[in-house]
This record gives sequence, structure tokens and C-alpha cells, in this order.
Amino acid sequence: MVPFRAFESDGDEGYASAAPSLIRVTGPALRLHANSTRRRPYMSPTKMVYGFGGGKADGNATMRNLLGGKGANLAEMATLKIPVPAGFTITTEVCVHYYQSGRKWPRGLDTEIQRAVAKVERIMGKKFGDPKKPLLLSVRSGARASMPGMMETILNAGLTSKTIGGLIKVSGNERFAYDSWRRLMMMYSDVVMEKAAGIEPKDGEGIRVQLEHIMEELKEKKGYKSDTDMTVDDLKYLCDVFRKRIKKVLKKDFPDDAQAQLKGAVNAVFASWMGKRAVNYRRIENIPDNWGTAVNVQAMVFGNMGENSATGVAFTRDPSTGENVFYGEWLVDAQGEDVVAGIRTPNSLRTKSMTPEQKKAGAVSLEKAMPKAYKELEAIRKKLEKHYHDMQDIEFTIEEGRLWMLQCRSGKRNGTAAVRMAVEMHRERLIKSDEAILRVKPSQLDELLHPAVDPSAEKKTSPITVGLPAGPGGATGVIALNPDTAEEWAKQGKQVILTRIETSPEDVAGMHAAVGILTARGGMTSHAALVARGWGKCCIVGCGDLKIDYKARTVTVGDVKLKEGDHLTLNGTAGRVYAGELPLLPADPERNKYYKDLMKLADKRRVLGVRTNADNGADSDRARKFGAEGIGLCRTEHMFFGEGRISAIRELIVASRNRDKTKAHAGRKKAVAKLLPYQRKDFIEIFKAMKGLPVTIRLIDPPLHEFAPSEPEQIQMLSHEVGMTSKELTNLLQDLHELNPMLGHRGCRLGISNPELTEMQSRAIFEAVATLQKKKIKAIPEVMIPLVGHTNELKDQSAIVHRVAKEVMKAKKVKFKYLVGTMIELPRAALTADQIAQDADFFSFGTNDLTQTSFGFSRDDIGTFLPEYLERGILPSDPFQQLDQEGVGQLVDIGIAKGRATRPDLKVGICGEHGGDPSSVEFCHRAGMNYVSCSPFRVPIARLAAAQAAIKFEHGELTKAAPARKSVKKAAKKAARKGAKKTVKKSARRK
Amino acid sequence: MVPFRAFESDGDEGYASAAPSLIRVTGPALRLHANSTRRRPYMSPTKMVYGFGGGKADGNATMRNLLGGKGANLAEMATLKIPVPAGFTITTEVCVHYYQSGRKWPRGLDTEIQRAVAKVERIMGKKFGDPKKPLLLSVRSGARASMPGMMETILNAGLTSKTIGGLIKVSGNERFAYDSWRRLMMMYSDVVMEKAAGIEPKDGEGIRVQLEHIMEELKEKKGYKSDTDMTVDDLKYLCDVFRKRIKKVLKKDFPDDAQAQLKGAVNAVFASWMGKRAVNYRRIENIPDNWGTAVNVQAMVFGNMGENSATGVAFTRDPSTGENVFYGEWLVDAQGEDVVAGIRTPNSLRTKSMTPEQKKAGAVSLEKAMPKAYKELEAIRKKLEKHYHDMQDIEFTIEEGRLWMLQCRSGKRNGTAAVRMAVEMHRERLIKSDEAILRVKPSQLDELLHPAVDPSAEKKTSPITVGLPAGPGGATGVIALNPDTAEEWAKQGKQVILTRIETSPEDVAGMHAAVGILTARGGMTSHAALVARGWGKCCIVGCGDLKIDYKARTVTVGDVKLKEGDHLTLNGTAGRVYAGELPLLPADPERNKYYKDLMKLADKRRVLGVRTNADNGADSDRARKFGAEGIGLCRTEHMFFGEGRISAIRELIVASRNRDKTKAHAGRKKAVAKLLPYQRKDFIEIFKAMKGLPVTIRLIDPPLHEFAPSEPEQIQMLSHEVGMTSKELTNLLQDLHELNPMLGHRGCRLGISNPELTEMQSRAIFEAVATLQKKKIKAIPEVMIPLVGHTNELKDQSAIVHRVAKEVMKAKKVKFKYLVGTMIELPRAALTADQIAQDADFFSFGTNDLTQTSFGFSRDDIGTFLPEYLERGILPSDPFQQLDQEGVGQLVDIGIAKGRATRPDLKVGICGEHGGDPSSVEFCHRAGMNYVSCSPFRVPIARLAAAQAAIKFEHGELTKAAPARKSVKKAAKKAARKGAKKTVKKSARRK
Repeated sequence: MVPFRAFESDGDEGYASAAPSLIRVTGPALRLHANSTRRRPYMSPTKMVYGFGGGKADGNATMRNLLGGKGANLAEMATLKIPVPAGFTITTEVCVHYYQSGRKWPRGLDTEIQRAVAKVERIMGKKFGDPKKPLLLSVRSGARASMPGMMETILNAGLTSKTIGGLIKVSGNERFAYDSWRRLMMMYSDVVMEKAAGIEPKDGEGIRVQLEHIMEELKEKKGYKSDTDMTVDDLKYLCDVFRKRIKKVLKKDFPDDAQAQLKGAVNAVFASWMGKRAVNYRRIENIPDNWGTAVNVQAMVFGNMGENSATGVAFTRDPSTGENVFYGEWLVDAQGEDVVAGIRTPNSLRTKSMTPEQKKAGAVSLEKAMPKAYKELEAIRKKLEKHYHDMQDIEFTIEEGRLWMLQCRSGKRNGTAAVRMAVEMHRERLIKSDEAILRVKPSQLDELLHPAVDPSAEKKTSPITVGLPAGPGGATGVIALNPDTAEEWAKQGKQVILTRIETSPEDVAGMHAAVGILTARGGMTSHAALVARGWGKCCIVGCGDLKIDYKARTVTVGDVKLKEGDHLTLNGTAGRVYAGELPLLPADPERNKYYKDLMKLADKRRVLGVRTNADNGADSDRARKFGAEGIGLCRTEHMFFGEGRISAIRELIVASRNRDKTKAHAGRKKAVAKLLPYQRKDFIEIFKAMKGLPVTIRLIDPPLHEFAPSEPEQIQMLSHEVGMTSKELTNLLQDLHELNPMLGHRGCRLGISNPELTEMQSRAIFEAVATLQKKKIKAIPEVMIPLVGHTNELKDQSAIVHRVAKEVMKAKKVKFKYLVGTMIELPRAALTADQIAQDADFFSFGTNDLTQTSFGFSRDDIGTFLPEYLERGILPSDPFQQLDQEGVGQLVDIGIAKGRATRPDLKVGICGEHGGDPSSVEFCHRAGMNYVSCSPFRVPIARLAAAQAAIKFEHGELTKAAPARKSVKKAAKKAARKGAKKTVKKSARRK
Repeated sequence: MVPFRAFESDGDEGYASAAPSLIRVTGPALRLHANSTRRRPYMSPTKMVYGFGGGKADGNATMRNLLGGKGANLAEMATLKIPVPAGFTITTEVCVHYYQSGRKWPRGLDTEIQRAVAKVERIMGKKFGDPKKPLLLSVRSGARASMPGMMETILNAGLTSKTIGGLIKVSGNERFAYDSWRRLMMMYSDVVMEKAAGIEPKDGEGIRVQLEHIMEELKEKKGYKSDTDMTVDDLKYLCDVFRKRIKKVLKKDFPDDAQAQLKGAVNAVFASWMGKRAVNYRRIENIPDNWGTAVNVQAMVFGNMGENSATGVAFTRDPSTGENVFYGEWLVDAQGEDVVAGIRTPNSLRTKSMTPEQKKAGAVSLEKAMPKAYKELEAIRKKLEKHYHDMQDIEFTIEEGRLWMLQCRSGKRNGTAAVRMAVEMHRERLIKSDEAILRVKPSQLDELLHPAVDPSAEKKTSPITVGLPAGPGGATGVIALNPDTAEEWAKQGKQVILTRIETSPEDVAGMHAAVGILTARGGMTSHAALVARGWGKCCIVGCGDLKIDYKARTVTVGDVKLKEGDHLTLNGTAGRVYAGELPLLPADPERNKYYKDLMKLADKRRVLGVRTNADNGADSDRARKFGAEGIGLCRTEHMFFGEGRISAIRELIVASRNRDKTKAHAGRKKAVAKLLPYQRKDFIEIFKAMKGLPVTIRLIDPPLHEFAPSEPEQIQMLSHEVGMTSKELTNLLQDLHELNPMLGHRGCRLGISNPELTEMQSRAIFEAVATLQKKKIKAIPEVMIPLVGHTNELKDQSAIVHRVAKEVMKAKKVKFKYLVGTMIELPRAALTADQIAQDADFFSFGTNDLTQTSFGFSRDDIGTFLPEYLERGILPSDPFQQLDQEGVGQLVDIGIAKGRATRPDLKVGICGEHGGDPSSVEFCHRAGMNYVSCSPFRVPIARLAAAQAAIKFEHGELTKAAPARKSVKKAAKKAARKGAKKTVKKSARRK
């Protein structure tokens, strides 16, 4: 019931305790201020308040950092002569100052606000606090980045016992005036008097709940169904009772002074910036705490003044499909919050897009009900798209037939829509190809790559209900009825469908954890829909016949009764809900023509190659279809776990423990001979799947004890095979135990101790190549030595690989090309890359291990402290998900620069998990790598991210210095002088 | 019985297989040669052979790299008009070339040798291979660094059936001629025909053993006691039988051609460079494989030509005490090898230094026996010391009354002697103070700091025997009768006394592993004595009444019979051997006035401060007495293990697992309150011991699970205390398990999760300071936050420390100074040191962990591969013992440069184990640190090493670039500009 999106940045609770964290993360400069300035803080004489309205504005759309998104766009619209109620914006800088100075206003702010109010009064022809023609104001937040529903709003500020008479007189509508007053009381007492004051009532005892309860009782007593049934007297009575209750509960009078109301509202918006919900949201979205919010103060206009008034929300194109049609919802005689609160179901703007249900219910489109206003709105839609070159999300109010625009901003859209809009706007010549590429967040592609419910399975069953398709794709999982449960179950590894009557901003963590979201109420612009769309998550909203009983923990549709924990399947593209678990089909983005067009544009633009991490034929095949240009990391250890193989590797373990070196060698040789045919077969499959694209094969990496048997029966079996007693074998295996296996006997250290392993793996690779070559199938092997820390390690291992290559060529009478390179995954390797490059044809940065050793974090053990680090802002993000450019990135830069100093044509890639993370891909581009490698499903994302990186780099938007890139150029120059032009050009092109 | 030091660079076996390792470690430049040159290698037209003799020489003492130590000094002596048999040196470059070209001679070498031989012939008036006046030659190795006994020698080359007649005629001594011939056959067949040819006979079946056996049989048959008893006919008979046996066993005639003998001998010396023993010795002494050895070919002179011939070895000062007296041994009618082989016991040079035993046995000093030659020798002694400004180790032969010098070189000495000589030579104005400082290897001080046998315990018992005091200090341990056992037992952690009839170069590994060495035979210049002196190891030689039975594994002295494994105690300073285990007293170098003088010189010269790692009052006190200028690392975790403490820390562990944050906080607070008084007491003790010197206290570092109980009873006890069931507690403790604890929840991560711990430790420190201050005792605390990887971690923790400091000052009404700094022990910390320095007053490089993370080596787990890495030369040294300057050193340089860029006066130190390693101390100086910190016993070593580093740096001998030092200067300049002169001067002085 709580309005969470009353025209976009209102909200309702929770910001009391978190303020100190702003201080913590803003760094020493800000701290200095906070400590040294005990007086009212001095603010540099920059402008603190920017006015707009009457076809003019102080600001414009480019000033989003200073004015917030909403303020900047209101100014822009005003300048475009689009009808905007006059108002002004208090800058984000004021908010930052507010926190630095212990929540005080900077000197001079009062005066600037007074002057701005006076200007609004002149434009609107009303006066704030005036008993005759009172001006009412809305006070809303507006940050640089959209944070829907995370901060507070106050409407109708300025309505007091002195001004209500004037409002009645001017509007001629006494009921409207008292309705506005009771709304002000409900909002203000909650947002300003309770929350911003830091009062924390118990659950269900907040002032707002109490006031709502009073109103519900009245309605019940009188037998009213809707708020609109209340009479003037009812409302007068409510205002009276509300005032008394507020005084009783909060021990303060409800302010009856317009100026006091304004000041309180501005402070409440500031306070809401550090509200719990807002802080949490920023963590998820990586928005810095020290940006601050602007405050927009604007003349109120009213959509609730009768049958020729209305309010609505619209997108200039369909935000869920991307189709170029006007898309929106409206309500007659209503204020903004009513549209999204779900109390009344809104109607379509256009007659064409009315649903059969709407038609049946006798609903009317705005097009039909108010043709003049609709036409005006259509014209504004076109004007805005042409002006902004992008789809806009707009809010409007019609006050007694007159159209007012309350907000416009770039509209949120899901991945499917983003792709289609980018491609179509490019075709319409609204945007250039670079812009089209930048329009789609790489992570949005995820959605196109997400699975869908198997259509053939859908045919065989019937949905239990159908709702609005708010987030496309398919999802299947167990029902969780509240966000906490969803989070907890997700942590346990369950797939969860968060199923709610409606969602509110408090639910975001649970929504994030769920694979799908299902709500009983709300439209396509409801909170759940907006949030899910932002995250590309499967989501169905407004399933009206879904009865959710939070107490009984059940979900009922007709006679189907499901319990929490039961399975549910969602088709988010069609809005269909199924009981039970339906099979999902893997994503096939190739069927989406817009996607294909976009990827074509991206592939043309990107410089980085994109490879995949795959270690079997099926994955390799899929990745190639997703556009992988080779395999950047083929791990070989998984191959050892098959039957027959594992016992051979165990024999090798036992043999390697023999103190007699000759016997150890003989035993290992015997063991690896058994592994050779298996490995050769594996490689043949992978090479075949990659159809002549390069395949980087990493030699065995994990410590051998990972292959050791642990079960008594396994040990007994092995003891028979190797001719030892179980006890001897157990003792031997215990010796393998390591205290810190991550830093133990693994990687190339294994190959150095057991050269027979390196030899066998090299032989398997090269024999596979030779076999295929005889069948005229091309195979390009790149042999990668892992965990090199000292140049001598690589020298030792690469010598074996080269020798085996020669031997195979001679024995099989073939010639083939191959490369030998190394992982750079230890700090020492990066620091001595100049030496290591002597023996490496390529480097592949293993940023997983490099992150582990640079931070001294064991990825397996960070669970004990990393969550707290992220929560408290000690680390800005999980360095295993987003490459730590500041620290680990330095090692990458150093490694590339030094490596290329030795070998200008050194091929460089990345094969850690970061290879599929867009911000890390940007870094890789900047660092001058040749390619990134990532999991098959992230290949398209990396392709797009690589293209965006190339564009941003060209436009100077990747700000960090690029030493490696410089060194590439330097090296290129140097080599060119030597006449080695061909090699260098190749490296500069990074193919 | 094998001569291991026949005039310094002979030796006897083992060089067959290791040659490829030269190729491996010499790097790409050499490899290129080896691969590309298949023809006889071209050698640049530099001089390959350097002649000397007749008062002239081609070379001189500075050409040691090219001519080896022996060759360079022979040339120098020749130029000094000191009588040296003429000869020539084949350069080390030839040896390097020899290995690069697959063991072939460079073009032109034969010719140069022929010319050089001709010159020797002219000077000596004899002809090589001439039947009338035959010239005989000695052929010996001679590397840049002395490798006593590790390589081969051939004497009497040129003696054949054609020349023996001439030798008899010229010498008038047929017995001597045949004795020389049989010696040549024994040596040559072994060294050239067997070993250099790569033949590997079974134990006891080598040609030398066979020939020796023949001779022993003859002597036995005839009832001879000594070799000198053999007649001309006996020797003729031996020569005949030897020739036949050689032919039979080695399937080759003994060469009867002078030129062939010379060529074979030269090759044998080259081959011995890659002999097993030489390679092993180089590993221990860190001598590069690619230096190569020179070959010295010199006219033979004979000390075995009768009663007016002699041979001897001497030191210009006493090498075991350093006293300024002529010290040496001689034998009449003998060749060099006889002096050291232990067959005959040599006599003193000087009459004064004759032992009572020698006098009793009727031995005569050289001074008395050959006064003219002795006087000449005394004059040469003085000439050499004045010329070389150092104690010389010389070898001489008197041939029929005529003195010939065969070798001179800087003499090896033990630590005690080195210190005394350095100080006395400085007093004598023979050397300057810088030179005196450089004269003592820092590791030699170790010896002065070594324990001695408790004199009071010695008084109460009697030694079972007394030998020659070859290595001072005391040692106690179990008897091991062969080197392998010694090594094995030492690995098991036992203290071992290696007890041998005599030692030979094969025994070095076992000698290295032992804490003490005891031999039955040999003098102060024997192999055991030399080697032990080099290493500063406790050693007693020549205990003649020690009967060692290798078969029965027993040691008998009179009626005392000991078994292998029984305890023995050595007083190496007095030469006394005790059965059983006597208590040892810790070293007290302060009683040594020479040591004190040397340290005074060093302290004046060094720039680096020297602190100690200590975490209790006793250690702190000792370290301060050793010269520590503060504590660089006071670990606090050991303090938690005491009674009362451990249960409190366990309560904290349990509390910290509480999911309810408020309860967790309360529980931890309660637990740390119990720890506070203990910690405060600890700190008071340490501060008191350090008497106002700064104390760097590291907050708790190891993961908490190290304190968790593991025994069921302990768990049950704790479960009572915390009110849980044993099962619950067991589950909770299991959750603490980490896969890689080294990279887990430790260091500052603990303080961030448990701020109460940081708070308690800070409070204990500051309350200790306050308590002492009230008693007028000065205490300077430096609080160190461990394992910082991100600047925010330090911000978080230092904020707590600063707050507590303020609180304590307020509560106790005192003011005190303190610093807050951090360990730099993670690569990321070094890379982002500019940010971290914002909140750090000092950095202390924790190079143990920095090495672990840079290499990705777990120190606990390297046993599985590091020994092989070192053996195969994949790593040049153990990076945990010697700082890896090439890799880890870069991070140190980066960390210092970035840290000082932010904070020019940043104090920087090191507190890893490397702080006491001389080469690492050099690095620290170069890097511009303020101090090093090491264990108490290494403090004097670090003081000396720091002084040497300062001197070497000034002379440009620390070759690596010094970015950090530059940055210090830069920063100093910058700060000076700002007027912060005082601070900077302080930092530039690095106190």
C-alpha cells in the first residue's frame, strides 16, 4: 500500500544510522573538512540553486552531476518550451556539504531559496504561504544516477490552516483541498517528522501506519470501497484527527507554516540520501556515497481536480520489446502515486494497445478520453526523442485539461528492448553506430543469452495463471514468499522464485538473489517490473488471481494450492506461470535479428579478440557459435577424472614419491603412458570443434593430491595396483597434505618435478594435431605453462615441449605450427616479465590467481571477511568479480610493458574470470591486450564490451594512463626501425 | 689417505655427469654459442696463455677473474722478484669456451702453450721431454674463488721412460726419480685416465685404490713402516707393476710421451670444474658455474730430494686467533701433499711455537733446521703482507737448500681471527678503517656469537681427549660416523657431531649439516680445519688417540667406548673433547675487545639503523646488549598462549561467531577485557628492557583458529565456559577451518572483524606507556597494523588506534608520542603504497610474506619442490633466506618510492628474516630504508653488513639501480623547498 514511486523519487523509510559511512569513504580531503570546520561551513560562492520554468532555465541536461538527473532534465525541457511547472533545483554540492558539516545548511542557502521561490511565484502567479492564491510545492530528490524509489518526496508543501481557504477558493474544490491536506499530513509526518528525525518506531507502530489505520477505519465504518468515496466532511474530520494523533505520537505540532514545511522537506530529502535503503541500493549499483542528491522544488499541479484532470507515466518506445510505439498508462482524477500504487488499475494511453480485459472492463484510452492533451503529448514524445536521441521515460499531469510535464529521463529498458532500440534508432539515423553500440549495457545481453522455457514442454501443460511479462526469459525454482527467505535459500544454492503480493524497495536484496520474480499486483511500470528490467531478470507482475497468504505460507490460484518451497516456472517473455518444474532451453541469441545486427556493429569496432574458456568439445562448439575466436584457456585437469584415467594419475602420484630417482622416473613413465591415449582423444575433439581456431591448452595445474583417493576402498584398490600395503599407501598419501595448497606443489612445479607429465601432455597435444593434419583438419595449438614465477621454470618446461614437438613432427612426418607461452598469475612473473618473455610466445594473465596473491586472499576462504569488507565499503567491489585495476591492474600493466620490451610481438590475453566482466574488458583494452577469454555464455558480452572499450578509449573516456599501450607503440616503433615491420603491425592490430 | 689439498687445488674424483647444468644456467647468450657453433669454436684473438717467471710476468694480482687466484698471484710474486718456478696460466676464458664447444680446445691454444713451455724451458734451463735435462711440470686448477681440494692436480708431468734417465743424472738421485714416476702414475691414471674419461668404477675398485693396494702389499711383505723405507728397486718394481695394472684395468697404455701427458693433465683440470664435488661446493658457496677455472702449468721443484730439501705451508698470521705471528708447518724431504695428508706429522716453522709434544718427540723447527731458508721466508712474509695489505696463505718448497714459493693468496681465517686481524692491521696502519670493516664477512661474526661450553661444567669433568682447536666455540650433539648419517640426522632436527678419522672433500655436505666436527688425524691446515674455519664451525682435529671403527660404529679413547648416536661435547676453542652432553653458554662477544673495536668502526660508518625482533623482556634485553637500537618487530600473538589468556581468546573466537552483531560485540568485549591486563604487563616489561628505544608492536596477526582448542577435554572445558554443548562448539570450531590459512582471515582482517581486539591491544600498549611515564620511564611505541592490502584497511584500524590513544591520554592525564604504521607484506600494498602512506607514519617490509605471495610459495609447503629447484639451479638461492632482489626487491623499491612520494619523511624498515642476511641488508641500504630488524643474535651481523653496504654503495659496488634512494633524495629536496628541513634531514640520515 505504501507508495514507492510517487513520481519517481519519493520513498518511505530508513536512513537513520548509516550517515557515518559517508565520512568513512570520502577520503582524507573530506575528513579534513569534517574535522576542522566546527563553525557553520563556508561554502565557496558558487550558485547553489538553479531555477527553471516559463520557457527558461538556469541549467540544462548536461549538468546532471550538479543538478541530478531530474533537475537537469526539467531545466532542459523548460528551455525546449515544453510545459513544465516552474521550480528550482538545490545542487548535489549542497548535499555533500550538508554531510561534511554535520547536517547544516551552507551560508546563503536560505537567501537563494527565498529568491528562487519568489521567481516561481512570479511565473505561476501564486504566492507560497499566501492566504489568497497559495502556491503549493513538491519537494523531491534527484541524484546523478537514477535510484527509483530509494529516496523521499513531499507533495503539497505550503498547505496550512492559513492557505487552505485560498486553495478552496482558487480551485473551487473544497474536497480536493482537504484531500491534499490529509495527504500532506500523512507524508510529512512520516518522512520529515519521524524518519528524518531519526525516530525508529516498532514494526507497525510508525505514524504513517497509524494514520492509514484511522482512514481505513473511517472507510470501513462508512462502508466506502475507495478513497474517492470520502466526502469533504470525512476529509475535514481526518485532517483534524491526524493533527491530534501526530501531536500525541511525535510530541510535536504538525507545522502550520509554509516556510517551515519547505525547510523540513528539503532536509528530509537530504537525510534520505543516507537512508539504509538508498545506501544498500548504491552498494548493488556501485554508486559512490559521496555523490549526494539534488533537491527539486517545484510548483504543484494537480491531476486530481476532477474528470478533466489526469496523471500518467509513459515511455516513448515499448521498454520491454523495444518496439517503436508510444507506451504508457494513465488514470483520470488522480495524483501520480495512484498510478503505481496499484490501488486503481491504470489504462493504456493508446487505443490500439488496450488489452481485451481493459476493453471488457470498459476502460478508455487517453487518446480517446482527452484527444487534445493526447495529441500534445504525442508531439512532446517526438520532440523529446529527436532532442535526446533516446527513448524517454516521462511523467505528466493534466490539470483541468492543461498538460504539464513533470519529468523526463532516459528510460530504463530490458536487454531485448535495448538491443532493438539501438539497432532501430541507428537505422532511423537517430544515432550513429558508435552510439548504438554504447546504448546496450554488456550485462543486458545476459538476458538474451538467458534460457527460455522449452516451448514443447509448455504445449503439454497449461499455465496456472498469466500476468504481465515484465522481464523476459524463463526461470524455474522454488517459491519464496519473502525476500529474506529468498536470500537465504539462494545462498544455499537453491534457485528461488520470489513470489510477493507486490514488491517494495525494501525487497531489493531478495529480488537480486532470486532467479525470477512474480507479483500479484502492479503494472509494467511497477517497482518489481522496473527493478527486474534493470537487472535483466525474469519477472511477471500483476497476476491478479494469485492469492498469496503470507501467514499460511501458501499461494493459491483457483483450486491450485502451492506451498512455499514448491516449484514454479515462469515464462517472463509471455507472462505465463506454471506449477512445477518445466525444462528450460539454453539461450539462442542467434534467432534475434537485432542482436545479430548489433554484434556485427560491435565486431567491426572492437580491437580485442574474444576467446573462450572451454575444455570439452561441446563447450567449445557452443562458444564458437557465440562468436569465440579461439580457446583462451583449455584446462586439462578435468580430463584426468574419467575412469581409467584417475587410476593412472594415482599410480603417478605413488611413483613420484619413490626416493629412488630411477624408479620414480620409470613408475611415472608407466603411469603417463596410460594417460596419453585419453588425452590425445580429448584434444582431437576440442580441435575439431574449434575448426582451425587457435586453442590454448594449459598443462596440468592443481596439486596432485586433488587426485589422490580418500575413501578406504579406493585406497585399498590402489594399494593392490601399486603393490603396497594400505597402511604404507595411507602414510604416503598423508605426506601429500599441504597447509596452503594454493601456494604449494602445483602448476609448473608439478611439471618440473614430474617431467614425464609435461612430456605426455605435450605429446598428446602434438599427436592430436598430427592426426588431424593427416585428415586435412587444421589445428593450432598454443601450449601454456601455468604458475611460472621465475624465468628458469619456463625455460625448463618449454624445452620439453619444444623437444616433444620436434619428436612428433619427425615420427609422424608432418610439420605444424605451435606456440609455447605462459600464464602470468604470480606477482613475481609480472615483475620479471622481461626475462620470462624470452621463452614465451604469449602471455595469458591468470587474474584469478594474480588477485589471490596480490591481495593475499584465498578465494576459498574469503567468505569469512569479504562480505563485511564490501558492506562497510573497505573494498569497493569483489576483486574476483571486477578486476582490481588500482592494484592488480598495475601488475598487468607492468607485465605487458616488460614482456613487450623483450618481445614486441608478444601475444597477450587474459583468461581469469575477469575476461567476461565489462569493466575488466575495458581495462584489458586499455592495457593493450590482444584478446580476452571468458566462459562461453559471456562471449557475446565480452564482444560488446570490447567494442565499447574501443569507442570509449578513442573518445578519451577510459581515463587511466595506459603505459602498456604506450609501450606497444614504442616497441612497434623500435621494431620498425629494425625492419621487423610485419610482426609489429600484427601485434598493433592485436589479432 | 687421499691427498685432498696437494698444494691447494688438486683433488680426486667425480665430474662425469653434471656438465649440462653449465649450459642451463648460463643464459641465452651462452646458449646461442653452444647451438650455433658446430665447428671448432672460434675464439676471439685474445691472449689465452699468460707466462711468469724469471722476475717477470704477463699478468698480475688484479687479473684474478682471468687467471684465477693462483695464477694471478704467481704472476704478482714473479714481478715482486720473489722466487717462483717459471710457468704459465691458461685463462678461465679458455675453460668457459671449452664447455661451450663440447669440450674442445679453442683454435691456437696448442701453439700458445708450446710457446709458453719454450719460455719456461729457457728460464729453467731444462727442456720438456728432453732425455738429458728434462723439465717436469705441475698442472693445477685455479679459479676466481678459492675452492680448496675441489679440483684436480697432476704433478711430475713429463716423466717418461725417455726422460727418467736424464732426471736421475741431473738429480743424482735414482730413488727420487722412480718415486716421482710412481707418484705420476698413481695420480695420472686416476685423475686423467679414469675420472676425466668418465669411467665410474665401483667403490674400492678405482685404479688409484688398486695401485695403493699393490704398494701397501709390497710394504707389508717387506715389513716397511713408511713410504721412505722403500728402496730404488722397490720403486722400479712398482713402476713396472703399475704400468701393467693400468693397461689391464683401463685398457690403455700409460702415456709415455711428455706432450700427451701435458695435454691430458690440462683436460683433466678443465673436466674437474664440472666434477660433482666442485659443483656441490659452488652451490654452497654461491659461486656461478660459468666462471670456469684457469690451469696453471709450472716447472716442478722438489722438496723430496733429501735432507736439505723440504716443503711447507704457512700463514703470515695465526689464522685461528689472528695473532700477528708467523704460523706454519713443514716437513723435511717431502712433497707438498705429504704435509696435509697426515702420513707424517709436520713440525712448526718457528721454534717458539713448537708444542711440548713436538719437543718431546725431538722434532725440529725450520727456523733451527734451515736458518737461511727460514730467514728468507720471514722476509718474504713481511714483503707479502706489506704488498697485499692482508694475511697471506703461502706454500713453499726448498729444493736442495733453495727456496721456491709455489703459491700465495689471501689466507682463510675464522671469525675471531678475521676480527683481530682487521682491527690490528688498522692499528698498524696497514689498512684504512673502511678496509678493516670490509675484511670481516658478517657471517663470520656468527662464530663470535656462537655459544661456548660452560667453563664451570668443564671444571667438573675431564675431557676424554684433546685435539687441535681448529674451529672455536662449543658444540654438543650425537656422534655421526659418516657424512650421510650426519645429513640425515640433521634433517631430523638432531644436533650432530661428525666424527671421522679424517675428512675429505666428499664429506662437505655432512660437515655443513653438523654442529661440530671431530677428526682423529690432520693438522690445523688439514681439510677439516680449513673447511670448518671457512664456515665458522666448531671443529677439533688431530685427536690421535681417538680410535674410530667404522664397521663396529664405535669411537674409543682408552677405555672409554662410545657408540654412534652417543652424545659428545666439543670445546673447539681449547680442543677439548667430552663424552656426554655439557651445557653451553650463550655467546658474549662483549668480552672480545677486537670485536668491540670493529663494531665501533662499523657503527660510525653505517647509515642503516639496526633493530631486533623480540617479543619478551629477556630477548629485548639481550638484543639491546648486542647493539639493537630498538625493536622492529614485537609479535603479540605469542603472548596469548599463557594460562588465563588462551581461554579468553577462545571465548573471543566463540563470541565472534555469534550472528547477532550486538551479542557478538558484547561477547568479544567481555573476552578482551580479560586479556587487557596480561598484555599491558607484557608491554611494560618490553618497554622497560628497551630503555627508551622505540618498540614496534605488531597487532595480532595469525588466524584465530590457531588458538582454538583441539583436544576433546579442552573443547568440553570451553563449552562449559561459554554455555554451549560440546557438539555445538565442535561445529562452530569446524567452521573456522580454512583451506589456505596463509591467505585467510588473519592480519588486519581480524582487527576489522573484531575491532574490540585492536582496541584492547592499543589500550594495553598506551596504558603501559602511561604507567611507565608516570614512573619517569620513557617508552616509544610504534603500533603496526599487519597484512594491509588496501588503504581502507589501514584507515579503519589506525582510526581505532588513534582514538584509543586519545582516550588513554585523557583518562591517565598524560601526553605521549606514538606512531602508527603498517607492514608492507602483500604485493598490492607495495603497489598502492602511495595511498597507504596517507595513514602510515612508517612502513615495515614483511619480506617473509611478501616472498610467499610474490612467488606463490607457501613457506610451510616448499619442502616438496624447493630442494630440487635449488639442486637443479632453477632458483639461485632459497628466497626465504636471501631476499629475491630481482623480483620481490622490485616490490620493495616500488613500495618505498610510492610511500615517500606521499610522505617524504616516511620511516621504512624491514622485519622479515632477511633483516639479518648480509646480502639482503645491502639491498635494504641501497633501497633507502631507515633500518633493518632481525633476531637478537643477528644484530651484530646486521650492524657490520650495514656498514659494509654503506662503504660499497659509496664505491659504486652495489651495482643495481637505486630508484628508492633517488626518491629519498628527491623527496628530501621537495620537502626542503617546503621548509620541512628538520624532518627530512632526519629521514635522509635514516635513524
